[in-house]
Amino acid sequence: MSDQEVSNNDIDQDITVVSEFIPKAHSFQSFVDHYGADETHLTRTDYIKHYFQKHCGSFSFLCCLNAILERIPLIRCLKDYKIRQNLYGDIMAGIIVAIMHIPQGMAYGVLTTLPPVHGLYVSFYPVVVYMIFGTCPHLSIGTFAVISLMVAQAIEGILSSPMHVINNGNETFSNESIPSLIDEKIRISTTLALLVGLIQVLLFFLRLGFLSVYLTEPFISGFTSGSAVHVLTSQLPLMFGVKSPRGIQGPFKIPKFYIKLVHIVLRRINWVSSAIGLTSVVLLYFAKYLNERFKAKIRIVLPLELVLIIIGTVLSHFTHLHEDFGISIVGEIKRGLPPPALPTFDHVNQLIVPAITIAAVSFSISISMAKMFSRKHGYKVSSNQELLAYGMANVLSSFFQCYPNAGSLSRSVVQEGSGGKTLLIGGFSSIVLASVIVALTPLFRSLPMTCLAAIIIVNLKGLIFQIKDLIFYFRISLLECILWTMTFVSVVLFDVDIGLYVGICTSFVINTVRTQKPRFVTLGQVDTTGIYKNIVYFPLAHQYDRIKILRFDESLYACNSVFFKRKFYELIGIQNIQSPIIPYGKSKDTHARESPYKCVILDCSPFNYIDTVGVKLLVDIFHDLNKRGIVFFLSECRFEVRQKFDVMKFYEKIDFHKIYVTTHDAVEAARDSLNHELLNSSAVFVPVTHS
Amino acid sequence: MSDQEVSNNDIDQDITVVSEFIPKAHSFQSFVDHYGADETHLTRTDYIKHYFQKHCGSFSFLCCLNAILERIPLIRCLKDYKIRQNLYGDIMAGIIVAIMHIPQGMAYGVLTTLPPVHGLYVSFYPVVVYMIFGTCPHLSIGTFAVISLMVAQAIEGILSSPMHVINNGNETFSNESIPSLIDEKIRISTTLALLVGLIQVLLFFLRLGFLSVYLTEPFISGFTSGSAVHVLTSQLPLMFGVKSPRGIQGPFKIPKFYIKLVHIVLRRINWVSSAIGLTSVVLLYFAKYLNERFKAKIRIVLPLELVLIIIGTVLSHFTHLHEDFGISIVGEIKRGLPPPALPTFDHVNQLIVPAITIAAVSFSISISMAKMFSRKHGYKVSSNQELLAYGMANVLSSFFQCYPNAGSLSRSVVQEGSGGKTLLIGGFSSIVLASVIVALTPLFRSLPMTCLAAIIIVNLKGLIFQIKDLIFYFRISLLECILWTMTFVSVVLFDVDIGLYVGICTSFVINTVRTQKPRFVTLGQVDTTGIYKNIVYFPLAHQYDRIKILRFDESLYACNSVFFKRKFYELIGIQNIQSPIIPYGKSKDTHARESPYKCVILDCSPFNYIDTVGVKLLVDIFHDLNKRGIVFFLSECRFEVRQKFDVMKFYEKIDFHKIYVTTHDAVEAARDSLNHELLNSSAVFVPVTHS
Repeated sequence: MSDQEVSNNDIDQDITVVSEFIPKAHSFQSFVDHYGADETHLTRTDYIKHYFQKHCGSFSFLCCLNAILERIPLIRCLKDYKIRQNLYGDIMAGIIVAIMHIPQGMAYGVLTTLPPVHGLYVSFYPVVVYMIFGTCPHLSIGTFAVISLMVAQAIEGILSSPMHVINNGNETFSNESIPSLIDEKIRISTTLALLVGLIQVLLFFLRLGFLSVYLTEPFISGFTSGSAVHVLTSQLPLMFGVKSPRGIQGPFKIPKFYIKLVHIVLRRINWVSSAIGLTSVVLLYFAKYLNERFKAKIRIVLPLELVLIIIGTVLSHFTHLHEDFGISIVGEIKRGLPPPALPTFDHVNQLIVPAITIAAVSFSISISMAKMFSRKHGYKVSSNQELLAYGMANVLSSFFQCYPNAGSLSRSVVQEGSGGKTLLIGGFSSIVLASVIVALTPLFRSLPMTCLAAIIIVNLKGLIFQIKDLIFYFRISLLECILWTMTFVSVVLFDVDIGLYVGICTSFVINTVRTQKPRFVTLGQVDTTGIYKNIVYFPLAHQYDRIKILRFDESLYACNSVFFKRKFYELIGIQNIQSPIIPYGKSKDTHARESPYKCVILDCSPFNYIDTVGVKLLVDIFHDLNKRGIVFFLSECRFEVRQKFDVMKFYEKIDFHKIYVTTHDAVEAARDSLNHELLNSSAVFVPVTHS
Repeated sequence: MSDQEVSNNDIDQDITVVSEFIPKAHSFQSFVDHYGADETHLTRTDYIKHYFQKHCGSFSFLCCLNAILERIPLIRCLKDYKIRQNLYGDIMAGIIVAIMHIPQGMAYGVLTTLPPVHGLYVSFYPVVVYMIFGTCPHLSIGTFAVISLMVAQAIEGILSSPMHVINNGNETFSNESIPSLIDEKIRISTTLALLVGLIQVLLFFLRLGFLSVYLTEPFISGFTSGSAVHVLTSQLPLMFGVKSPRGIQGPFKIPKFYIKLVHIVLRRINWVSSAIGLTSVVLLYFAKYLNERFKAKIRIVLPLELVLIIIGTVLSHFTHLHEDFGISIVGEIKRGLPPPALPTFDHVNQLIVPAITIAAVSFSISISMAKMFSRKHGYKVSSNQELLAYGMANVLSSFFQCYPNAGSLSRSVVQEGSGGKTLLIGGFSSIVLASVIVALTPLFRSLPMTCLAAIIIVNLKGLIFQIKDLIFYFRISLLECILWTMTFVSVVLFDVDIGLYVGICTSFVINTVRTQKPRFVTLGQVDTTGIYKNIVYFPLAHQYDRIKILRFDESLYACNSVFFKRKFYELIGIQNIQSPIIPYGKSKDTHARESPYKCVILDCSPFNYIDTVGVKLLVDIFHDLNKRGIVFFLSECRFEVRQKFDVMKFYEKIDFHKIYVTTHDAVEAARDSLNHELLNSSAVFVPVTHS
């Protein structure tokens, strides 16, 4: 303790002695005095007052009504609707998207293990609701592969839970087509949709739409690619006409699945089903390629999937594929729209975790697509309003036997490309779909499942080919590459929800890790410009004798303070290398522990933030260097840093005059103080050394 | 698509037109050309080569031997030992710490639900091992409250697991003193110590000691304070002489516990036990206070706890407290040191999760204390070497019936304060302890448990009073305050391990959150200095007409790019405010969507890092502003940013000449281009406006 006090006295004397020589005109204090800087700022109460004045200043009934109406963007859309410019495009886009909805809806409906018609419901109701509340005209809400798969997992989770088996012990669930089992599945999926919707609406009221900023591009790319692998995996058995391997649990599901699948396929592949499926994939892929290639010439997008479905159905119906070759077909489809019914709350406890995950995934996928379109077309998408729209779409459609929905990448791209411009596209698409559901569903009875599987697999192309993003990130940014890989690998090897959490955690960890070991560079004056640059990249930048100018290229805070301290002492030549225990060869005993520098200047311009640990460290270094007879200057401290200095009473501990506005001012001050010292000891002027 | 192309052509033309007027001498390219900046840098392979040359250049047998010997810091300590200066202090410190070890060891031994003598073993063996491998002479390894509690939880977790009950179904565990149950507990705790040690040694080999930087001060303060509440909770029933409430599980354990405890205490409090306990607490607290107050005069630390134990034991023995008043006493204590025995591996599967948590907690608490002392006394503590020391202490002591250990805050402070200076303190303390264990343990038979509880509770004072750190953080830094609170609350309301994970996650999230909404300031030139400062704090800083100078005080990356974009357009006056749906009062229809600025300069000095999203955003803004006839300049781009521009082929998309070395250069260029434009349109010179 007494040691400490003595050294403090030393420092105080040092400060007084050195300060005298420093021309005050350059220091930060004199700068502030001279240019009348007024560092008062809004306090927290002022801020709140200001906020209320701004938001409630013109409070009135009409203002409130407008605020509510703003939550229904359809009104503004109708108000500003330009019939001549938009109507034709909207109708065409609506029809084309509706035609895409039909096969995708049925295919993804199958993916959830519900009857395919529920996929059609999801293609209808949420679209209508989204038209009212949504803000992105090009986003096609409805069935989406990843979400459908997650719904299937949630349903299986409940049906296989011991509690459920006990409750329904008397019934036998050997055959999946038993009506009570399907009813149970429908009940579970509508409850799930309601929960997902309520979570999203709750997030809207908490104004948490901004959370979408944490869903960065590499994460979304890795996540959706990984999910695509899951979807592909689920479709292969359908395509080969074999039963999906059962009872695969735990990590590494996907590799295990493929091993089992190969076994099953080798033993009893349905050759007809495989042939139809593979042919469909090849044809569809080729047709899509042609469509893409000659889009400019044809100018309309051909409804290839619908063509495939019609051909498949007709072929299957007239050649009796189901009866003669054992190919699974869609079967009877309920006709007409279901009447509204309140979802049950039987399994809320078990469904809450899947619901949170699905809410997060569906929001993140939809919002990232909406933002992509908004960037491209220059309209504004509000992430909070979108949360409300997705939430309402889920809540309201859960009354009509719908499972959770999300924006589909493939349909949205078509919706954007086919010329539609306003939210009304959704309305026209719904009209077409409703007429199909009411009138045409029985026609699809003989449609082979393998065709639906082929449609899904071909549509996955875009998502799976995102793997080439990895190459892009590998070249550009290692950290973003790691994020992509971590997310993708954990989705593929573990599960979609685990991948979501691993990816989000990785994003946060990466943001910390990248600030760990920033560059710590020595600066030199470039010619006589007053500009100081890294001496490594600017060989002409010269250093002054006995003055070291340093810059730490990151905010200084707890997590990099240890690195800062070690590197700082290394750079100013104070090293603590001990002699080896057993002396040998070129012993390092001669290592000078004295620093060759008399003044050290730290350019604080990269400090966007400094925490208590950082400020304490600067004080420690200041005192330690003072003990060693080295003067420590700070320059270019930004307001954020000065404010933290103020609240931590930094200026009571270190001399305010050691802080300079620019690095050049600090260098001038350092040279002055060195010259003064030398003059006192009758030495010569400090020469400029070009190093 | 065709729209996009047209606009690109526009931009290219714009660039050519504007570039002509810019005096190239100021642009970054000309600066680089002029001062011969050589931006080549070490590639990854060069770096690896360099690393091997540095580390293996002088590879030899002696070099290797030295490297191994460096892992045993005791050798250097003995080699450099100065008998005259250090020996007396080390012996005194050793004796005092040993005296503290005895009551604490027994008390914390009780806390783990093992016989108290095991606490004494933990006070002996790990200390010897740490003396050999450790680097911090003032850290007192041994029993620690939080770790003891976690061991107790792990033991209970195994004993109450259904598997264990089934395996041992035949035995009855109604009475805790049954030898087989105690043997089982000892087996579990030694396995746990071995696992904890192996994990720490593994981390040492992976060189992961640096991970301790993520254990920031607010986190450790909140975490240890919260743990202290758990320890206090566990001691209160012992003090009141009642049985601890059982069967409390799940979250909010602590509040539930207190409710139950009050019930139990009200019904059957042991008044004698409570009286002795409370008196002990008051006396000990008061004595400690006196000791602290008159430390300067007395110059030695009185072994108050040992005095209490002796008085308690004598009193209890002669007044037959146990027999007559039903007060629980320590009971028979095994005499002598246990022979070495291999830990069993029965419950490894169930113990691996508690072992990871204990390894993390014990490492984080010990290393943070070691670093605190190293900062104070100026010696070097290597976090990797410490990992090895803690790991070896746990592994080796697990062969001698020890449970996991950690550094104790209270003992370490005494060890530091009592004048010891080298690692040999541990040796002297072990000699004293070994003689106590071998010869004196039977004397403590009648010691009342309530006295041990009193010792623990008084020692917790320091940890619990850390709550005042919260006030400090609240004043200084809101984010650090949130971290403290989150950690503390989750430890108290949930559990120690959950709190650990919540705290670490919060640290990472906070590091991201604080970069979300940085200041985005408008700069103005201060007088004629060439220094540009925030116009809010420097009222004399003036802006040039039609030129906007902006600075975004944080690295630009995915998570704040949305905020950047919105704020950027707001600041340059391009707003997208729509008219209200129902027109009213002062309609905002008149809002100009045109920006009043012709040149926008972005000072990039705060960009320590930029990711792909950030670069893309800058390109987007550049193109968008070009379309609106505004010229966009960048200044002060650091190497990190320029490198990312390079790999992302930024210069193919935007004009290299728009990048300037300093903000002042950019302003000069902007004024030149404006003047040229005005001259062309026969207008007057741009005047300087003081705003």
